[in-house]
Amino acid sequence: MMRGAQVHIHPQAIAHNLAAWRTWLRAQAHTPTLPRLWAVAKADAYGHGLEGVLDAFAHADGLALSSLDEIHRCRAQGWHRPVLYLGHDGGPHEWVDPALAPLHVLVTTAHQAAQLAALPQAACLHAWLRYAGALGHDGIDPPHYRALFAQLDALRQRGGLAGLGHLQHYARAEEPEALAQERAAFRALIDGLPGPVCSENSSAVLVQAAHAARTDWLRCGIVLYGINPLDRPLPAGLDLRPAMSLYAPIVAIRRLAPGDTLGYGGLFRATQPMRVGLVRCGYADGYPRPIPSGSPCLLAGRPSRVLGRISMEVLSIDLSQHPQASIGDGVLLWGAPDLRAETVASAAGTNAASLCTGLTARVARIYPGHPAYWAPAA
Amino acid sequence: MMRGAQVHIHPQAIAHNLAAWRTWLRAQAHTPTLPRLWAVAKADAYGHGLEGVLDAFAHADGLALSSLDEIHRCRAQGWHRPVLYLGHDGGPHEWVDPALAPLHVLVTTAHQAAQLAALPQAACLHAWLRYAGALGHDGIDPPHYRALFAQLDALRQRGGLAGLGHLQHYARAEEPEALAQERAAFRALIDGLPGPVCSENSSAVLVQAAHAARTDWLRCGIVLYGINPLDRPLPAGLDLRPAMSLYAPIVAIRRLAPGDTLGYGGLFRATQPMRVGLVRCGYADGYPRPIPSGSPCLLAGRPSRVLGRISMEVLSIDLSQHPQASIGDGVLLWGAPDLRAETVASAAGTNAASLCTGLTARVARIYPGHPAYWAPAA
Repeated sequence: MMRGAQVHIHPQAIAHNLAAWRTWLRAQAHTPTLPRLWAVAKADAYGHGLEGVLDAFAHADGLALSSLDEIHRCRAQGWHRPVLYLGHDGGPHEWVDPALAPLHVLVTTAHQAAQLAALPQAACLHAWLRYAGALGHDGIDPPHYRALFAQLDALRQRGGLAGLGHLQHYARAEEPEALAQERAAFRALIDGLPGPVCSENSSAVLVQAAHAARTDWLRCGIVLYGINPLDRPLPAGLDLRPAMSLYAPIVAIRRLAPGDTLGYGGLFRATQPMRVGLVRCGYADGYPRPIPSGSPCLLAGRPSRVLGRISMEVLSIDLSQHPQASIGDGVLLWGAPDLRAETVASAAGTNAASLCTGLTARVARIYPGHPAYWAPAA
Repeated sequence: MMRGAQVHIHPQAIAHNLAAWRTWLRAQAHTPTLPRLWAVAKADAYGHGLEGVLDAFAHADGLALSSLDEIHRCRAQGWHRPVLYLGHDGGPHEWVDPALAPLHVLVTTAHQAAQLAALPQAACLHAWLRYAGALGHDGIDPPHYRALFAQLDALRQRGGLAGLGHLQHYARAEEPEALAQERAAFRALIDGLPGPVCSENSSAVLVQAAHAARTDWLRCGIVLYGINPLDRPLPAGLDLRPAMSLYAPIVAIRRLAPGDTLGYGGLFRATQPMRVGLVRCGYADGYPRPIPSGSPCLLAGRPSRVLGRISMEVLSIDLSQHPQASIGDGVLLWGAPDLRAETVASAAGTNAASLCTGLTARVARIYPGHPAYWAPAA
């Protein structure tokens, strides 16, 4: 029997999502040539556990990761394809570690470009010049971009780099007009320059699929975990399956009389006799404290709702429609076709990725391995 | 050099807070007899790491914990004083494990009372009958309370329990009127019954200190970690020190021109030339994504502010007032006398406890051991 919150991870859903994404993309792009695909697995595979889901990326062309530690872990587990390093640990002298190869790196400053030029072992690195763009986290601004690219391209031509391309990361991929502007600015900047392009990501492709064929590498993150990054339905024909299901056990059951309150602040007050369950999952597990009373959960595959304020260790749910519920039953808090993390995140005023990556160390990750991944936990 | 977010834990601040709390309480209660004190250390000591801070509780009368695993960990580390078990794992047959003794347990159902009566080893347990009250998470409602207490007291008198008391957990300890009502209902319920009382907690004592002397055991949680649970200043003479400081390194520095945007959604737009820093801490570390642009942080002990939306791995800060800032510098995100977790939590629409307990596994816990705990990280 579960003693606390557990998250069930479904690598087979990730593999399905990767294949479904490619199939959908092919139908959109009207071309047999699809961009190569970086499966973004940063932040411990968006909280799904890198080692546990690595096999599910087997048909991706590469992995995108954000710490050298994550790259070493994937290499140790036998990932031999390219890795795109999105992080900031160390510098060029660490990137050339043969244990990391084949490695693609982002060049975001002139200083890094100079370091690469001074490093003979950089010949094994594929470099991507990162355009700062509207996101502006790091990268190169337009006045310096083409000169720095020329400098790096000369290095590449003398064998000092294994490859060189252009990378763009959108700030507003979800908004068609802003996206088109960001894309146009980038395309104008690199106009006429050689080298592959890595510009689109899953949100951008969902918003403007026709441009997918204009990128050589596509970064695909959130959709692989079965999450829709947009606040509108997915296009017909794209079936994404949740790759993570958060369960927690009922640990106590009580009856409330009309007028009885429940939880801190007395935010919930019963208006009729009702049965409620105490569930061993709270904000110390990563369940979002700001979520309002009444937000959905599932019990034995049927709807229930969270009642009152989330506390550190527990939350309460409505058992009015669940006469069979008993102590030990697993409550599904998110991660099923009819209870998506997106829905819970939206109720809590945040995004699904922050729920998945925000689970704390005490939430056990289980890899049940069965296909009916949204079945109630025993 | 830091590669990611780190949390510096200050056990000496916890020890200070415990002593300061007792001193303040003595001044309030006008009596030499203070209640005994349960130091609440559930949820891995509110995210501070149970093993790392256990010594700081040396002068508490007992520890309150919410999983059997946590109790075993404390016993393994030599905690020999009483433990109050607040959780729901297992049942009476597990509670009597001699490795857990001396153990205080909550009785929340008639079924548990019957199990205890049938268990000869329960003679070693101190039981507390938990009143459901306005919180209503679990526990006994008024119609059944006195009968069940009588039953358990008879068991105690025949040597079947080591002790028996009354426990109340307030739903609205921060609101004077609601608190007084909850207390009055409980006091009326137990009127004339024998046994010790454990009713007050730190919030309740801060709101109505005069009642502290009417409880035999006081549960003291959040204040031990240096956090003010109320939305008004602490009383004069009570100096609480933050026990956790979250640091993360600057990993990139850029200049923005007027009109440049920063971060997802383009939420921040520069109105003048400015310098910004990219900090390696995001919502995947547990920093709250919903926090608004402009929320405070500290760099080299001086104020800065978070700019734009928090992303998974990084956030941006304003370096306009920090011409000396360079890559590798540690930014303090919360946990200093002038940047309390309460302030950050309030900006993010949540509470400080959810920040402390919501840090994820990848945030290293460091125990620097020096007294100037809020000094900038090297």
